[in-house]
Amino acid sequence: MQDHSPSLLADGYEQPLDLTRADTLRAEVCCSSALSFLMEAHDGLSAAIAERAGFKGLWASGLSIACSLGYRDANEASWSHLVDAVERIVDSSRLPVLVDGDGGFGNFNNARLLARKLRERGAAGVALEDSCFPKLNSFVGDRHPLADVDEFCGRLRAVKDTVANELVLVARIEALIAGHGMHEAIARAHAYQEAGADAILIHSRSSSADEILSFADAWQNRLPVVIVPTKYYRTPTCEYRRVDISTVIWANHSMRAAAAAMRRVCGRIFAEENVAAIEPDIIPLEDLFELFSYDELAEAEARYLQPNKLQH
Amino acid sequence: MQDHSPSLLADGYEQPLDLTRADTLRAEVCCSSALSFLMEAHDGLSAAIAERAGFKGLWASGLSIACSLGYRDANEASWSHLVDAVERIVDSSRLPVLVDGDGGFGNFNNARLLARKLRERGAAGVALEDSCFPKLNSFVGDRHPLADVDEFCGRLRAVKDTVANELVLVARIEALIAGHGMHEAIARAHAYQEAGADAILIHSRSSSADEILSFADAWQNRLPVVIVPTKYYRTPTCEYRRVDISTVIWANHSMRAAAAAMRRVCGRIFAEENVAAIEPDIIPLEDLFELFSYDELAEAEARYLQPNKLQH
Amino acid sequence: MQDHSPSLLADGYEQPLDLTRADTLRAEVCCSSALSFLMEAHDGLSAAIAERAGFKGLWASGLSIACSLGYRDANEASWSHLVDAVERIVDSSRLPVLVDGDGGFGNFNNARLLARKLRERGAAGVALEDSCFPKLNSFVGDRHPLADVDEFCGRLRAVKDTVANELVLVARIEALIAGHGMHEAIARAHAYQEAGADAILIHSRSSSADEILSFADAWQNRLPVVIVPTKYYRTPTCEYRRVDISTVIWANHSMRAAAAAMRRVCGRIFAEENVAAIEPDIIPLEDLFELFSYDELAEAEARYLQPNKLQH
Amino acid sequence: MQDHSPSLLADGYEQPLDLTRADTLRAEVCCSSALSFLMEAHDGLSAAIAERAGFKGLWASGLSIACSLGYRDANEASWSHLVDAVERIVDSSRLPVLVDGDGGFGNFNNARLLARKLRERGAAGVALEDSCFPKLNSFVGDRHPLADVDEFCGRLRAVKDTVANELVLVARIEALIAGHGMHEAIARAHAYQEAGADAILIHSRSSSADEILSFADAWQNRLPVVIVPTKYYRTPTCEYRRVDISTVIWANHSMRAAAAAMRRVCGRIFAEENVAAIEPDIIPLEDLFELFSYDELAEAEARYLQPNKLQH
Repeated sequence: MQDHSPSLLADGYEQPLDLTRADTLRAEVCCSSALSFLMEAHDGLSAAIAERAGFKGLWASGLSIACSLGYRDANEASWSHLVDAVERIVDSSRLPVLVDGDGGFGNFNNARLLARKLRERGAAGVALEDSCFPKLNSFVGDRHPLADVDEFCGRLRAVKDTVANELVLVARIEALIAGHGMHEAIARAHAYQEAGADAILIHSRSSSADEILSFADAWQNRLPVVIVPTKYYRTPTCEYRRVDISTVIWANHSMRAAAAAMRRVCGRIFAEENVAAIEPDIIPLEDLFELFSYDELAEAEARYLQPNKLQH
Repeated sequence: MQDHSPSLLADGYEQPLDLTRADTLRAEVCCSSALSFLMEAHDGLSAAIAERAGFKGLWASGLSIACSLGYRDANEASWSHLVDAVERIVDSSRLPVLVDGDGGFGNFNNARLLARKLRERGAAGVALEDSCFPKLNSFVGDRHPLADVDEFCGRLRAVKDTVANELVLVARIEALIAGHGMHEAIARAHAYQEAGADAILIHSRSSSADEILSFADAWQNRLPVVIVPTKYYRTPTCEYRRVDISTVIWANHSMRAAAAAMRRVCGRIFAEENVAAIEPDIIPLEDLFELFSYDELAEAEARYLQPNKLQH
Repeated sequence: MQDHSPSLLADGYEQPLDLTRADTLRAEVCCSSALSFLMEAHDGLSAAIAERAGFKGLWASGLSIACSLGYRDANEASWSHLVDAVERIVDSSRLPVLVDGDGGFGNFNNARLLARKLRERGAAGVALEDSCFPKLNSFVGDRHPLADVDEFCGRLRAVKDTVANELVLVARIEALIAGHGMHEAIARAHAYQEAGADAILIHSRSSSADEILSFADAWQNRLPVVIVPTKYYRTPTCEYRRVDISTVIWANHSMRAAAAAMRRVCGRIFAEENVAAIEPDIIPLEDLFELFSYDELAEAEARYLQPNKLQH
Repeated sequence: MQDHSPSLLADGYEQPLDLTRADTLRAEVCCSSALSFLMEAHDGLSAAIAERAGFKGLWASGLSIACSLGYRDANEASWSHLVDAVERIVDSSRLPVLVDGDGGFGNFNNARLLARKLRERGAAGVALEDSCFPKLNSFVGDRHPLADVDEFCGRLRAVKDTVANELVLVARIEALIAGHGMHEAIARAHAYQEAGADAILIHSRSSSADEILSFADAWQNRLPVVIVPTKYYRTPTCEYRRVDISTVIWANHSMRAAAAAMRRVCGRIFAEENVAAIEPDIIPLEDLFELFSYDELAEAEARYLQPNKLQH
């Protein structure tokens, strides 16, 4: 936990984490020859759990955050709602967080303001997609008008000029989702590289990975490639390594695991009018207290509240 | 979904839900001879899922909301953070929501301001506990100084004078948690009834229900009794019916189910570097889209966006 | 003060203010034959002061709120920032508040979500303008692309279907600002009436009122007309009465008065390195305490904090 | 403007302002032999205006922010409301901002969380006062119970251990306000120095400066002394220089100037039903546009939106 670590608090010093996180993410996404994985998080709890599981980076998913808030993934939540959610994710782990910034919530000016605020909250990177505002989730419906290439490149350049290397800038291409074909996708990748992107996220909703593998073949890693195997989840990971994909994002699996478990447990509790039988299916309170360093709070009380003043 | 229901939007009318929700909660908690159940929710997703499971009311848990945000249950999250979380819970279901208001986040003035804002956000009730600010989770440690009875009754009276019958006011007694014994608990219940409470929540962290059953025997339902069987979860529900408990709160089980599932799934994905094998353990995207009425959005697009203007 | 009034708190009852405020605004804007005036407010302080001055309604100005927040009037502040600001304005007076909702912060779906939240916070009405997202302040530059008429009517209909009569819906026409001429303005007024608007706000940045007077002549009060004499401020008010204007909005004058005074006083304090000479130019602290009913807090302490427990 | 400066955006680089601001404030408050002045700000507008007037640092006043929000200065606004307001102040100028953190909004744990968040938002320092939560404004009433010295020192140490030198830590002594006399004030100053404070703010509500001058005489600048001449405003500034006061805070004068001007202008507009006569008393729109660098937005549009795509 960034916020709760005894060692951080004890020695009164904390590394400039923001820079470190961006640099860490850059090293993993852009400069590593090994395949990296980012795990989805949508709140503080999911972030803390992903870190404990061993992941080295997080994806602050727009869909997952929207679901968590009870909004639809259609820019119903405001850009500041997103920033608030990212703050909780960042504060709940030490990992670099790549933020799903949708299309930037408007034009170049909205996009650079969003980036500035994400940097301030300690995010390590932002992914911007070439959609129009308001967007609709890529897996829903058939209306996904693409942004004009030049206009979207303006958003990328504005963000780059604002945050420079303090945030990793990932350009996400929705051309395949929108049915524009591989030629358009590659053309956009070139344009986005020119505009300053640090990496290309090629999105697909095909149930096979053929599209993104073709893209990778054609693109030849001019910039690192990031993928989101939500629909083509059956693909063996060695396929991604074979074509030198840089980063795989498990984009919504923590939220969907949580939803499945809550549905199952709610159903049973409602039916059984009792929780005794589901106790093995839920995390012990002690594990939660450990996850969020309640012991640090107890130690700090001993340090900062005089023993004889505990009743304040 | 309150926010997304086609029927609500289609006919352009929406019931004055706030009043209805408070009345509904009152009917369940205070006026029903049958045992009622409130299911914990900590965000929009958990609220929507609990409603679908069949529950008739929700508990906006302080512990669960804190965990979700990555804060500790020690009043680290501000009162307005709580109000924001409650807003998402209320907006994501039609159910009445009883809010865990901790001690009211300060004195009588903070408590009545909190209650006013919870009412505005559509909550149906608020539970205030007789702890001092900042509180510490009832299940952690041994330092749980109780509030002075008169001072806490002032908080209850201030809330009652502010929100009258528009919020159900539940007084939560921490005397057993704090080790003050049954006599103190009963004395406080009388005082809180006098101060205007609509119901008494008697809290216990014993692993058996003896404490709360004794309380119920002694209290004789002068006000309805609400219980939280987190630690004494093994107790058969018929025991609660036998002593005419009014309401059982399953106080954190959705969050703990979510945490357990996320931990398990994150662990597997990290180890397997793939999601194919965990796909049966996560909710299908289609179910999420159904849960949040994405179809209503599609219908509304057809209604409000001219077919020939879809590219705006 | 809604929040602080001794009488409201003392008798434990509060009118359903939201409905009353919308009804009051409707009566003033739509149903009164007399000319009404709305005074700009941008925060709690300006709202409280405008109420004390005698005004019967408030205008939550987008420009003023943006300036107050240090954002530019180009949809830099998010829709939820606006909702937060409106909440403070509503809570700080008993007056009906008409909110400057810009274009609704996106498409019909964003607009109706905004309206829903404004209603929840107690606003009495919302004005939506036929601009594209993100907007730019009407007085700045020459690029003010108008929204397509049908698309904008979809926004109006969506809002109307959502909030029905619980919010007054004002359609704001930017056609004259955008240089489209009177014919376009009138055509749009007809379309917006058809779509469900309760009133028409005709905006102009001419330094004379000729444009809006011509509009009023041609429109013949098919719906009440609201105007914003910021640029044509020299026009005598009798002119507005002559053409049966319904409502005049003094759209930014409180904020601009505040800015002028702060600039003057800051300049003098900086130069004089002392505040003695500017004391006559600032409000006494006592007046602030009176404005925000600090006496109610003292009375409430006496009522809710036991005299012998004041040191809690 | 930090946010809007063409040069900052043009060259794509921005200094690590947070550190610079804290260092700047430290240099002014702690290490300068010259008397410094901090001007109150309560929102983005007042911050931008104070910077233009020539001030070298800002005071984010609790009273002024509360008034601006329409809350009373009694910890009605939450700690996160304060953080939000500080963010707008920081973003609207390049100046170092010393934040009025009241007592830290609870115990040591709340205080260090507040400090962490203020640092993240770019504040340069925080002043913590030895009051109990919730506080009441120092100029109101006679009930100002002081915090226990050891307990308050625990808050200071916790903050110091958390933010080290990245925030200037000012300990504010309310002993004179609370009527405890000079001996108690000096004793507390020693304790707070020991606990890690960088400077001492000695508060007084006497109409003469005798109290604070006596304090300064007795204290002998063991740590720099900060004063708030709100009630003893008639004191010539040379008096402060004579006793080597480090910093004078003009603590609420911008807000009070704004309130006086809004009251005057609202009164006149209400009476005259016209704004023509008050036009000289309000800031021209052009000055506001200049203050918030609207020209930068126009230039950025030319840079990032292709000329032929301006209608997007």
